[in-house]
Amino acid sequence: MSSIIQSVLGSVSPLTKGSKLPTTPLKETNPEQATVNLSQLHGKNIIVGVPGAFTPPCSSQVPGYARHADDFAKKDVKGIYVVAVNDAFTTQAWKEKLGANHQLVHFLADDNGEWTKAAGMSFDASGLLGNHRSKRYAAIVENGEVKEVFTEDQAPEVTVTAADKVLKHL
Amino acid sequence: MSSIIQSVLGSVSPLTKGSKLPTTPLKETNPEQATVNLSQLHGKNIIVGVPGAFTPPCSSQVPGYARHADDFAKKDVKGIYVVAVNDAFTTQAWKEKLGANHQLVHFLADDNGEWTKAAGMSFDASGLLGNHRSKRYAAIVENGEVKEVFTEDQAPEVTVTAADKVLKHL
Repeated sequence: MSSIIQSVLGSVSPLTKGSKLPTTPLKETNPEQATVNLSQLHGKNIIVGVPGAFTPPCSSQVPGYARHADDFAKKDVKGIYVVAVNDAFTTQAWKEKLGANHQLVHFLADDNGEWTKAAGMSFDASGLLGNHRSKRYAAIVENGEVKEVFTEDQAPEVTVTAADKVLKHL
Repeated sequence: MSSIIQSVLGSVSPLTKGSKLPTTPLKETNPEQATVNLSQLHGKNIIVGVPGAFTPPCSSQVPGYARHADDFAKKDVKGIYVVAVNDAFTTQAWKEKLGANHQLVHFLADDNGEWTKAAGMSFDASGLLGNHRSKRYAAIVENGEVKEVFTEDQAPEVTVTAADKVLKHL
């Protein structure tokens, strides 16, 4: 019965250990084409879901991943993918403003929110941002499968999803 | 019959000469509160609807309004309101990047798209931007009533909505 209700509501179980990442491709630098399929990345990668480009908590959290990128590389991490429900013009402008230029760090636009919804990580941020956005989480994935995931109880908080905290789990 | 279809589709007649502006308030600098009610502005004002913060056409068009702001003021224009279906963090970051700091120029966030939809100026920009956005238009309004409105046939174009073109109609 609950699965029927879930189906009607369109809700999905959130990412958890053992989950496969959604296969929906995401946009990086080209707003006209979604080119990055996170489910097909090889090796160890980090997915960082954030509620909103240019919001103060996200703008304080994300640079930590760029600063620590070499430390992640030493732990055999191939890429760090920041995923936001924003359009690609906005995510790239945000990346530029943050100066997060390390080659390991990618900013991805889930502009229609489909990836985040399929990952069960969507929440209603209408009050502050006008629509549904991504919860704040960080996931360690390997060959498209979630090994560990850390999700903030409150989207504005940056505790378990801070770069230095995630590093300790590698 | 067509009105029934329109009603089912939720479409609204676009702004035209004599239209009243929607009464939905919009956000300016405070993302937590919509404080600007365009329908209640006194005197002559300009509304500039744009498809997307940080997109190249909008980023080339909007600075023209800041550059010409003194010319608009000489024509008794009290304010120029740039309205985008983006959240307020994004519109304010965009304003900062453009350096559009003239006191006449305001950047407003229609973050849930309700104002733009009520104005009949919404279009499906899912392919490039992930959701419905604002057509590109410029409206001369007086005490909340549209006096003239100029809308681009193609949202990426900047022809009739350029600041210098609109100035000539004042």
